[in-house]
Amino acid sequence: MDMPILTERAAAAAPGGAVTEKARIAVAGATGFAGQELLRWMAGHPAARVTAAMSSAPDGPPRALPALNRIWSGVVEPFSLDRLSEAADVVFLALPEEAAATVAPTLVQRGARVIDLSGAFRLRDSASREKWYPATKLGGLTPVYGLTERNAVAIRGAQLVANPGCYPTAALLALEPLAEAGLLAGDVIIDAKSGISGAGKKATDRTHFSENHGSVSAYGVFGHRHQPEIEQELGAGVTFVPHLVPLDRGILETIYGRLRPGTTARQVAEIMEAAYRTAPFVRLTGETLPEIKHVAYTNFCDIGWRVDGDGRFLMVSVIDNLVKGAAGQAIQNLNVLLGLDERSGLLPLS
Amino acid sequence: MDMPILTERAAAAAPGGAVTEKARIAVAGATGFAGQELLRWMAGHPAARVTAAMSSAPDGPPRALPALNRIWSGVVEPFSLDRLSEAADVVFLALPEEAAATVAPTLVQRGARVIDLSGAFRLRDSASREKWYPATKLGGLTPVYGLTERNAVAIRGAQLVANPGCYPTAALLALEPLAEAGLLAGDVIIDAKSGISGAGKKATDRTHFSENHGSVSAYGVFGHRHQPEIEQELGAGVTFVPHLVPLDRGILETIYGRLRPGTTARQVAEIMEAAYRTAPFVRLTGETLPEIKHVAYTNFCDIGWRVDGDGRFLMVSVIDNLVKGAAGQAIQNLNVLLGLDERSGLLPLS
Amino acid sequence: MDMPILTERAAAAAPGGAVTEKARIAVAGATGFAGQELLRWMAGHPAARVTAAMSSAPDGPPRALPALNRIWSGVVEPFSLDRLSEAADVVFLALPEEAAATVAPTLVQRGARVIDLSGAFRLRDSASREKWYPATKLGGLTPVYGLTERNAVAIRGAQLVANPGCYPTAALLALEPLAEAGLLAGDVIIDAKSGISGAGKKATDRTHFSENHGSVSAYGVFGHRHQPEIEQELGAGVTFVPHLVPLDRGILETIYGRLRPGTTARQVAEIMEAAYRTAPFVRLTGETLPEIKHVAYTNFCDIGWRVDGDGRFLMVSVIDNLVKGAAGQAIQNLNVLLGLDERSGLLPLS
Amino acid sequence: MDMPILTERAAAAAPGGAVTEKARIAVAGATGFAGQELLRWMAGHPAARVTAAMSSAPDGPPRALPALNRIWSGVVEPFSLDRLSEAADVVFLALPEEAAATVAPTLVQRGARVIDLSGAFRLRDSASREKWYPATKLGGLTPVYGLTERNAVAIRGAQLVANPGCYPTAALLALEPLAEAGLLAGDVIIDAKSGISGAGKKATDRTHFSENHGSVSAYGVFGHRHQPEIEQELGAGVTFVPHLVPLDRGILETIYGRLRPGTTARQVAEIMEAAYRTAPFVRLTGETLPEIKHVAYTNFCDIGWRVDGDGRFLMVSVIDNLVKGAAGQAIQNLNVLLGLDERSGLLPLS
Repeated sequence: MDMPILTERAAAAAPGGAVTEKARIAVAGATGFAGQELLRWMAGHPAARVTAAMSSAPDGPPRALPALNRIWSGVVEPFSLDRLSEAADVVFLALPEEAAATVAPTLVQRGARVIDLSGAFRLRDSASREKWYPATKLGGLTPVYGLTERNAVAIRGAQLVANPGCYPTAALLALEPLAEAGLLAGDVIIDAKSGISGAGKKATDRTHFSENHGSVSAYGVFGHRHQPEIEQELGAGVTFVPHLVPLDRGILETIYGRLRPGTTARQVAEIMEAAYRTAPFVRLTGETLPEIKHVAYTNFCDIGWRVDGDGRFLMVSVIDNLVKGAAGQAIQNLNVLLGLDERSGLLPLS
Repeated sequence: MDMPILTERAAAAAPGGAVTEKARIAVAGATGFAGQELLRWMAGHPAARVTAAMSSAPDGPPRALPALNRIWSGVVEPFSLDRLSEAADVVFLALPEEAAATVAPTLVQRGARVIDLSGAFRLRDSASREKWYPATKLGGLTPVYGLTERNAVAIRGAQLVANPGCYPTAALLALEPLAEAGLLAGDVIIDAKSGISGAGKKATDRTHFSENHGSVSAYGVFGHRHQPEIEQELGAGVTFVPHLVPLDRGILETIYGRLRPGTTARQVAEIMEAAYRTAPFVRLTGETLPEIKHVAYTNFCDIGWRVDGDGRFLMVSVIDNLVKGAAGQAIQNLNVLLGLDERSGLLPLS
Repeated sequence: MDMPILTERAAAAAPGGAVTEKARIAVAGATGFAGQELLRWMAGHPAARVTAAMSSAPDGPPRALPALNRIWSGVVEPFSLDRLSEAADVVFLALPEEAAATVAPTLVQRGARVIDLSGAFRLRDSASREKWYPATKLGGLTPVYGLTERNAVAIRGAQLVANPGCYPTAALLALEPLAEAGLLAGDVIIDAKSGISGAGKKATDRTHFSENHGSVSAYGVFGHRHQPEIEQELGAGVTFVPHLVPLDRGILETIYGRLRPGTTARQVAEIMEAAYRTAPFVRLTGETLPEIKHVAYTNFCDIGWRVDGDGRFLMVSVIDNLVKGAAGQAIQNLNVLLGLDERSGLLPLS
Repeated sequence: MDMPILTERAAAAAPGGAVTEKARIAVAGATGFAGQELLRWMAGHPAARVTAAMSSAPDGPPRALPALNRIWSGVVEPFSLDRLSEAADVVFLALPEEAAATVAPTLVQRGARVIDLSGAFRLRDSASREKWYPATKLGGLTPVYGLTERNAVAIRGAQLVANPGCYPTAALLALEPLAEAGLLAGDVIIDAKSGISGAGKKATDRTHFSENHGSVSAYGVFGHRHQPEIEQELGAGVTFVPHLVPLDRGILETIYGRLRPGTTARQVAEIMEAAYRTAPFVRLTGETLPEIKHVAYTNFCDIGWRVDGDGRFLMVSVIDNLVKGAAGQAIQNLNVLLGLDERSGLLPLS
């Protein structure tokens, strides 16, 4: 198989092999929430190392990240496309979508593999792209949707991985096995509760402490860009309503729907278990519904469910929006790209 | 009409009249969250005064409530049924349901009017009562369900008011006008998010700070006692799933459903506005969805909604669970019982 | 006595009298945290009414305040100095300090009485003013420092009241009786913990939810403008260090110091009790130290203390920074200005 | 040197060496906050593995820890002293102090080395022990106080390590270098703010969500057991006042004092830098004062300070109370006991 050279090098780091060289990784957009989270996790990666970290602006002095002192010892440089393509075999883009759409084609052309954490490359339908991400172009690229557990084969050979949105990650890991088995019947409703870090690092009225402490609010009703993303992957319409809840990190989605008549609770359990038997980061909790605190600061997605006698089902899916919903899944995708154990840098390789 | 004497006395306190005597009110269960909230609000009531406040236990010394120092100057006495029926014209019961079911018949028999904040008298169907509140009996009483805005005429003449549950209050104020107009079609799903005070004052693993900070959890799925209460009043089945969110006071319910084909957004708006034109505590926010912070520490229920082209609708209803969801609505019901302005003690009577 | 006419009118509203006319009050800067809090409380004031509410900007359309819907029915107009002086007998200024310093002299000249919530008029020493509030001038005015409990006589006749800062309010109510009695010996240290609303309504990195959730931070060390304000009123130097804690409203100050040799715990208690015997909003808790939750959403200042055998003492003083630390104390000062019961609009007048 | 055999085995795991065998570690009291944190961190330890985890009760079935699913795959057994001493070379005791005092002597006698996370063995003076920990006995043991950065040489050879309290850890790392240099003059005041996990896993009124959300409270004034511990290690009296703040994990201590006349800010900086030049977990932030969020979920202690012209100084020291204040420091001590890199299992060994 035509495994790229860099992958071979990295594969050498697997247990039993002698480590010769680590894969070279760059992070563009290193000062945002997702960017810093990438650096924090990559610092402990056994087979890849960050060789360049850049802000999203092309000027300003290099600067250290105090929050990562003693964890990651590098500095964040101003953005430089040339430096980015020279410094790294794989580039994480944690940039605004428009910037990501602009630089990804050049990076791929120069031979880098790209994992993009923005929404720029997630929607395949051009009309949908134009509606939801009007400022972005595909630039001739063929992105692979990076929901690792569902798409590992394609990710392994990808030049450009579109890392999924945080809400779609939790929703799709719960729903895709049922959809694939043809068990979903009728409307699917996804009521999502997200911590405030999901609203980004920018200081706005929406992210002010006093607006959120002691409160809950719905937003983006019938108009959030993660809805078409979920629908694209699921191949069916959904009602998706996100809410902000007064915590920092984590998403809990409560999913309501109906099953094809005659479907039993046992069937649902078997399908879910079959889907994730070998997935290290999906933990099925069955009838015990999971909570955000079980996954905060980890790359896990915990999924539980209930089926009642009338064919109604309810699923609860929880992730940390900055880990499995962003940086952690990006690293999981990196591991797949490099042919490494999926858990590298994310869990002890016992 | 046979308006009780006490109501006449109290009515004399209305603007313009000379105040002769205030209605005498007692609170049983005064040390819990709802009980203390009752005392706090009653302290400013212009036409009724608390003449007795009791704990739920029959022994122990009288004690002051430090949190209400300078607001309410009384002491909480041990529970005494005799004293309760002698001291008050109207009794608020903020007791566990079994205790409430035990004492309410005697109080009514002795001539007191009772507003019960427990679940003991909310369900009318005897099979349903036996299932959800097995330890309670009706005791020959005919409770009136105290959702003030929907039931004021019956409440005015009631001997026993069953003050609604917190979740049903928010759900029913949103859904009843549409149900009454026959506009609801198909499944109704109520995804509720509640602050931790809704789980009660008792220290349990569930109410521990560390269990809830930074987390969200679903509970009581397909088995919460407020579901049959909502279904009874609505006359239709619903899916009801409550969640705990990391705040102290407040409930936000996101309600999903479908409208009878052909229903327009304008029709929904007209029905809602007609339903609450004269209701001082229901604020309709239309397409601007309300947030918990707008109603915390008030007796308001704010309701907003969206209707999309496919006949799907979404409503968001918010209350403070300890005010409109408990003590505030109980005082609103007191005002109706006494023939007073509904706002007395709850809003400035401008 | 030369009590102003408006005070006489308002005094007529006291219990027993026939209400003829309410005092006319204006609020400038009505959209900030303190401004909205002023409107909320004033809505229930029995003897004064808001006749004008203005933003801090001279243009833009009038707008309603959704958070005050059904509580206060007015609209916020653009700022107009002419309208302000015509509409009101007493003006609350909840403006940035420079704007307050600019408009206050004109208002006073035109006969309005002014209660200023900014820091513009708090410091009397001109060198100190120049250092801490360089953009403000006294404009020939003679402000009265509005710590109501300590300065009511002067406030009663004032044309311009400088409403105290939130931190100084909690600190001075605790320390002034001891200072006045000459009991303080040596360094006084004030370690203050404040909710985030104290950092203002502006969205900044400092007020972002994610910066504060799960964190505590010290700020303004050895350089906060409330330190000279405390020192001016106390007549002695202090060490003052404020911290932000992850809650919205409230301040707790822990105060450390030493007492003159031989001072007993009983003496401290007697001095504190004598100081606040008739003060409706200061609640002394003695050895039981108060907590923020006891005063949140109220105008109370709760103060407790401990004295050990070595002459060390510790005081804990708590307030709601937006009520006793801003809007509530301003209304308390209004009541004093108008010769009303201090509690009017802030507590039931039982 | 008489390095124990087990240490030699473990040392073999250092980079470059062939791993032959990992040190065997047991955790008693594995279901509490500190116990679970120990298991979480130990799961990624490169040179030691948990061979037994026990609850504090001698009966009940073995049970898994859902929160650690996929991180640690073992089960928690009922407590058994025999099994404990057989299964492990080093035992972590995360038990109530009385239980720890009872079992530690037997464990040591049977050849295990013990790291005790309770307060049982921290105080050396027998009168002080009797006052603060009346239910515990030394049992003939000679505990070594386990503040790793200050005491590594003694810890390396210890049979029993008394892991420091959370508050003393933050206080002593900040103050000991200054005390040792003889720079402290006069009273030292430690105002500590702690997350609620510091109050333990037991559900009490004190740990109820509603008691703490939106509030701050002082507790244990002049009577907290960590005060004599700080004083013992510092060799001087201090005023120590802990507060609970509404967050889960983390402590921030603000320390006030005076320096020997003539001491300069530069001297303080030099002393601090000299003290921690080679300490991987102490990060000095100088004049930039640290915040809890910088250390949450890490084993770091961040320390900043300010010195003013009058000889007053202020230090701010922050830790995660469950990591550097408990489990993390215990593992750091384990690493020292075993002769490993101090960072093993706690930071990437880059």
